Amino acid sequence: MSQTGFTIWFTGLSGAGKSTISSVLERKFHERGLKFEILDGDVVRTHLSKGLGFSKEDRDTNIRRIGWVCEVLTRNDVIAIAAAISPYRDIRDEARARIGRFVEVYVQCPIDVLAERDVKGLYKKALAGELKNFTGVSDPYEAPLNPEVVCYTDRETPEASATRILNFLEAGGWLHPLNGRGVSEPQAVAQS
Amino acid sequence: MSQTGFTIWFTGLSGAGKSTISSVLERKFHERGLKFEILDGDVVRTHLSKGLGFSKEDRDTNIRRIGWVCEVLTRNDVIAIAAAISPYRDIRDEARARIGRFVEVYVQCPIDVLAERDVKGLYKKALAGELKNFTGVSDPYEAPLNPEVVCYTDRETPEASATRILNFLEAGGWLHPLNGRGVSEPQAVAQS
Repeated sequence: MSQTGFTIWFTGLSGAGKSTISSVLERKFHERGLKFEILDGDVVRTHLSKGLGFSKEDRDTNIRRIGWVCEVLTRNDVIAIAAAISPYRDIRDEARARIGRFVEVYVQCPIDVLAERDVKGLYKKALAGELKNFTGVSDPYEAPLNPEVVCYTDRETPEASATRILNFLEAGGWLHPLNGRGVSEPQAVAQS
Repeated sequence: MSQTGFTIWFTGLSGAGKSTISSVLERKFHERGLKFEILDGDVVRTHLSKGLGFSKEDRDTNIRRIGWVCEVLTRNDVIAIAAAISPYRDIRDEARARIGRFVEVYVQCPIDVLAERDVKGLYKKALAGELKNFTGVSDPYEAPLNPEVVCYTDRETPEASATRILNFLEAGGWLHPLNGRGVSEPQAVAQS
């Protein structure tokens, strides 16, 4: 079955669950035999944006590069999954306008929950004023106004978030629903 | 018919004909309904490498970024066409090793012919010592040792070069040969 490309654009604070939900999607997409590519913030900083910092200008450049790769993949019928903080609304909207087939997923989690989890120990430092340009604490985060999907990662599992994204994609015709297995059984020959 | 990804990696001096041959390939690939993407040196410098210069280090970074995008496209069954000078052998070989399915095309043209054509007026300046880091004049160019295809653009048309590349791709099983049209005609019903 032929596949049409589109971009799933995750946005959200550090530690909110963008990469974790991407990993669950990765498994589900893999099971369906889909062609997709995850552009994780860290991966991209290694391959495309080494040397860039975290000023507004450098962040914008980084996100524009991710957007360009998503655009190239999307027009070649690959599903691109961007999973970077992407804090600025205007740059996300620019990516949406360029790419066209664009599903914005807001990975939402209250900052006090993130500070409590603090997987990388960054929130503690940022809240103590030791980290400049830390999104949500010492740097702005502009939440999407009309995201296609919102994941509430303080109240739902990554599996549940990924399932809701899949449901959205199937409902909107972005993905073909899986054929149910064992649902449509061959009709028994009538015995008389 | 399903398509397998690979990378066509053009290398050669400025003005040798990399972009011109790519454009001919573009038309031929388009006619065949193939999925492909041309990563032209100038396009990439706009989208991926703004701010990088022409030192060995910056050139290497630029080529590595092109290589990474080619790798991502190739593994998603898209044909990637890189058309940048890519003067250093080690970085091209690094791209080959990472990408795997890699066809190196050396676009060869003697420098005196290039200086005579001098489409962009750059050779004159470089030969007069006015351009630093100009490949082939004031900066090194390391020709490939075992390229899959060599195009001799001082002696063949871009159409001829592109046809030889296509022939190589078909011969090596990278591309399916086009079905000849009108060759296999329906058998006439025998009249008696």
